Amino acid sequence: MAALVSDSLAKKNNDKASENSTAQVIGGHGTNSYSNNSSYQRLSANVVTKKIEDAIMKNLDVETLSSTSNIFRVADFGCGVGSNTINSMQDLLQIVEKKYISQRPTSSQMPEFQVIFNDQFTNDFNTLFTYLPQDKQYLVASVPGSFHNQVLPKSSLHLAHCSYSLHWLSRLPKELRDERSPAWNKGKIHYTSAPPEVLMAYATQFAEDLDDFLSARGREMVSGGMIVIVGSSIPDGMPYSQVVNGIMYDCMGSILMDMVKTGSISEADVDAFNLPIYACPPGEFIEGVERNGLFSIEVIELMNPAPWLKGPIDIPVFVKHVRAAMVGMFSNHFPSKAIDELFDHLVLKLSDISQQLESCYRDGLQLFAILKRR
Amino acid sequence: MAALVSDSLAKKNNDKASENSTAQVIGGHGTNSYSNNSSYQRLSANVVTKKIEDAIMKNLDVETLSSTSNIFRVADFGCGVGSNTINSMQDLLQIVEKKYISQRPTSSQMPEFQVIFNDQFTNDFNTLFTYLPQDKQYLVASVPGSFHNQVLPKSSLHLAHCSYSLHWLSRLPKELRDERSPAWNKGKIHYTSAPPEVLMAYATQFAEDLDDFLSARGREMVSGGMIVIVGSSIPDGMPYSQVVNGIMYDCMGSILMDMVKTGSISEADVDAFNLPIYACPPGEFIEGVERNGLFSIEVIELMNPAPWLKGPIDIPVFVKHVRAAMVGMFSNHFPSKAIDELFDHLVLKLSDISQQLESCYRDGLQLFAILKRR
Repeated sequence: MAALVSDSLAKKNNDKASENSTAQVIGGHGTNSYSNNSSYQRLSANVVTKKIEDAIMKNLDVETLSSTSNIFRVADFGCGVGSNTINSMQDLLQIVEKKYISQRPTSSQMPEFQVIFNDQFTNDFNTLFTYLPQDKQYLVASVPGSFHNQVLPKSSLHLAHCSYSLHWLSRLPKELRDERSPAWNKGKIHYTSAPPEVLMAYATQFAEDLDDFLSARGREMVSGGMIVIVGSSIPDGMPYSQVVNGIMYDCMGSILMDMVKTGSISEADVDAFNLPIYACPPGEFIEGVERNGLFSIEVIELMNPAPWLKGPIDIPVFVKHVRAAMVGMFSNHFPSKAIDELFDHLVLKLSDISQQLESCYRDGLQLFAILKRR
Repeated sequence: MAALVSDSLAKKNNDKASENSTAQVIGGHGTNSYSNNSSYQRLSANVVTKKIEDAIMKNLDVETLSSTSNIFRVADFGCGVGSNTINSMQDLLQIVEKKYISQRPTSSQMPEFQVIFNDQFTNDFNTLFTYLPQDKQYLVASVPGSFHNQVLPKSSLHLAHCSYSLHWLSRLPKELRDERSPAWNKGKIHYTSAPPEVLMAYATQFAEDLDDFLSARGREMVSGGMIVIVGSSIPDGMPYSQVVNGIMYDCMGSILMDMVKTGSISEADVDAFNLPIYACPPGEFIEGVERNGLFSIEVIELMNPAPWLKGPIDIPVFVKHVRAAMVGMFSNHFPSKAIDELFDHLVLKLSDISQQLESCYRDGLQLFAILKRR
């Protein structure tokens, strides 16, 4: 169960200009760094690799893609920091190589491969580069900037990968902090268990972000190029309070409100704080892709992000993962002492409701989609 | 005079695997950082900008370069960290735009520009990105790796820039540290005032590095693409002891030997330490380019790197610049206390011989070359 929560928090907000540029994982190699606390994310990635392979073997026409040049570019949008990032891209390259061998069995020549890592300007690319193997057989580049804008030259990209990044909103809708708005999110930090206007504000922002993302990729990708999208989702119509992440956000909100009572933080700070995270249901996702019009949907499905997870979870370890992924969001709003308090209490609170966590819905919480540039 | 010394030390060694990976400038924005102590380098860059403009206006055929795609890529090899890096590349882009307007006056469409920053894996790209203007009108990528190898896809690059980077050797010739070799560089830290076998060992390594650099760029560049090279040089046949850098290296060597006498460091440490820096005279450079064969030489000249510098230099400020550029080379070999001692003594020693420094040869110490891919 841990994976389905921490996966969805693994990647940081991808918009430099965002008012939520706090949504940042911990760089470097330290004890609390994301790179040393993301083993769940790697497990989760293995589950989807097989699906990606099926889709690429079936849908990616490398013959056509190679007709104009002998370079094949793969980019990871919202790459973050850590060995998972490198491993995922190497998995992708292996699949593409396999497709080349299968589609061009008589050609001994592979294209040159370039792996491109994209994330916001503040991402720790220095540390990411330390994970690259010395004997790598591909070229590497990093491309800083929000993936809601074009970051690569036109028609230069063949395969895009975006895993657990799209759920980060580029910015928080202003009305969440507007006392006069019906979407004012008083005493809460997320749309979970909030008024429908709050959910609507999140959903509208996500739809806009998705359209920007698709338009930017549309410019960068060659015709026939593919995007692999993996990320947080939820079945159409299910309230977010029925899933682990939602329960955890509600816990966090209620711990923060308790801390207001003891004077650790102010109520205004809690009212002003909202997690910029939206788990898009497949219906809304399909609608967004169709409205954008640049891509066809080759595959779309909901899946269990961590079907291998059985039995009781180790809540302290789990919270350590969550903290590594989320602490940046909190640290610009709350003093570090309050953040320690929040996560200490989160361990206790989640332990109290471990039965509820383990019995709640967990099956279709991961969206897997393959889009193809028309 | 300060500029002609500190310029030649401004960039770090560009080889990850080098035994001299210590040759690293200080990242970040701190008091002793390279980015805050590189104003001389910027002044020097302005001097060559006009020459680059003349060469591009005359020699770069943008019509041909744009015939296959509408992207124009400019790369800085050995980019380092700091606003100078960004400014130099923006200057280059302005010149290329001017050439487009001049050569295609009826076309309203500029190509897309992508600026690529290359340096070794350990370069502080994170800090470099913080210098990018928010409103930049070009795409950006960083490409980590030694520029002695191919780092970009084949035939993808249109214009290359390499300023004060080529003089860093990819590795130190082993014989400098071999007691049995005539090139053993006992009691010295550079080929200045050393036996001819030491100079020969440095020159041979430089020739090999230059050939690797040109072969790698040859693969990356489109036919008709150009390389701008600016860097340390010296007139053919002039001993390095006649120029400021050489005098300073001799001073450093003699200060280190004095420190051996007082017991601050060991004699073996000094014997084992050699600066991996070679100022290639134009004759050897031309020979290397012709032997490589992939590029024609469009322009080559020696120039004064800092003709505007008159009167006495401020030696403490000057040494601060030198230290920011060079400290990484020393810090893996000597304890930090010894490094403070070295640079403190350098201020005193250079002050004692300031007359000699100001009267020595300083005119043709900068090589400016434009090469064109055949």
